[in-house]
Amino acid sequence: MVDTAGVQRRGRGRPSGSNGSDTRNKILRAAREVFSEVGYDAATFKDIAARADITRTSVNHYFHSKEELYETLFDSTRERIDSVVRTGLRKADAENGVVERISTFLHAAVNIDSADRSVAKFIVASLFDSFRNPEFGSRALGQLDEVRAFFLSTLESDVVRGTLRSDADLTAITEMLVAVMWGMSMYAGFVGTNDQLESVVDQFVELLAGRLFEGPSAETEPRLS
Amino acid sequence: MVDTAGVQRRGRGRPSGSNGSDTRNKILRAAREVFSEVGYDAATFKDIAARADITRTSVNHYFHSKEELYETLFDSTRERIDSVVRTGLRKADAENGVVERISTFLHAAVNIDSADRSVAKFIVASLFDSFRNPEFGSRALGQLDEVRAFFLSTLESDVVRGTLRSDADLTAITEMLVAVMWGMSMYAGFVGTNDQLESVVDQFVELLAGRLFEGPSAETEPRLS
Repeated sequence: MVDTAGVQRRGRGRPSGSNGSDTRNKILRAAREVFSEVGYDAATFKDIAARADITRTSVNHYFHSKEELYETLFDSTRERIDSVVRTGLRKADAENGVVERISTFLHAAVNIDSADRSVAKFIVASLFDSFRNPEFGSRALGQLDEVRAFFLSTLESDVVRGTLRSDADLTAITEMLVAVMWGMSMYAGFVGTNDQLESVVDQFVELLAGRLFEGPSAETEPRLS
Repeated sequence: MVDTAGVQRRGRGRPSGSNGSDTRNKILRAAREVFSEVGYDAATFKDIAARADITRTSVNHYFHSKEELYETLFDSTRERIDSVVRTGLRKADAENGVVERISTFLHAAVNIDSADRSVAKFIVASLFDSFRNPEFGSRALGQLDEVRAFFLSTLESDVVRGTLRSDADLTAITEMLVAVMWGMSMYAGFVGTNDQLESVVDQFVELLAGRLFEGPSAETEPRLS
């Protein structure tokens, strides 16, 4: 459990056997959790040091200000997202249809969320913090630019392949998929368990594939039974 | 534009011709905006009074503490959601298939968002505030309980009607739809314009109806041309 400040209290002290890069990564990870849980404004170096199990002086050694730490975190999270997108793209490229490509991408993304939920949590939380702290401008909104670009290029390539209707509104479909991704990130970061998240993605993939709702429609010939 | 605190400055003074109920509603509306923009922790009665264009003393006359104001707002937002759900349910009841019912519901929901985006914004923002302020417990998570109940009962009734596969995992589909609703609320509250929001919902409805991706699949007979 966490206390009212949302921060786990632990004993401090620089762990033995760690090097500078380890310590820096430990700070970034702790900061990602603390910023997500209490928000940018309420987060302090003291909380982050406690969470990382190091001294506050050590945090200051690596980062001179909260803003610098937040921006570094932001950029490293963005690199994680880019890496997810690249992995997703590589896997998706082996697939033929638009549905298979998007499904493959979502499963690749959710696997990384499952391994470290704090990334999903930070993506969504930082979107709020950027609205609440105009000095970060539109940085957070840009977080999903790579995801948006992936969806758009996938949809475009599928029009070329003939697996997507040529009159489809690609920008509108992309925005819908981005909204769905946000909902899933929110679900991943704050609401569901890993199993529930997997299941949410599975059901969305079933929906994409047209396998979810197979009830009779006006255009369907009635089956003879 | 807004200043760094995210609060529009206006002249104050109780407006002429207003009654107690008007003033209370004005405070609630201003508070919904301010809480969404700067978060529960950073919001002050001073900001809310300025936004409502009344004196701080007037705010205090109606609400004795920030917590009381927030909880009142929470309950009134929940009533709005319930009312949206009831409207959506009534309209959806006239429809036969699961896709038509969910689509009708989403369009009813989005019409209300379009008229007053601050509700969507508050729904999503308060979810974060409840994570960041454990004294509100799971209130925010419960905000979408009615929506969840609507999806589940719609899916159940469609299994009974035979328009949804009887082996479908209704709980999982419901959670997926809840995640999508969150994404759309986030999009509605913080990202897109009204037109973009309508378009996101339209595309999701096309997806639900199986009209979005109509490319060839393994199960489809090739067409003779």
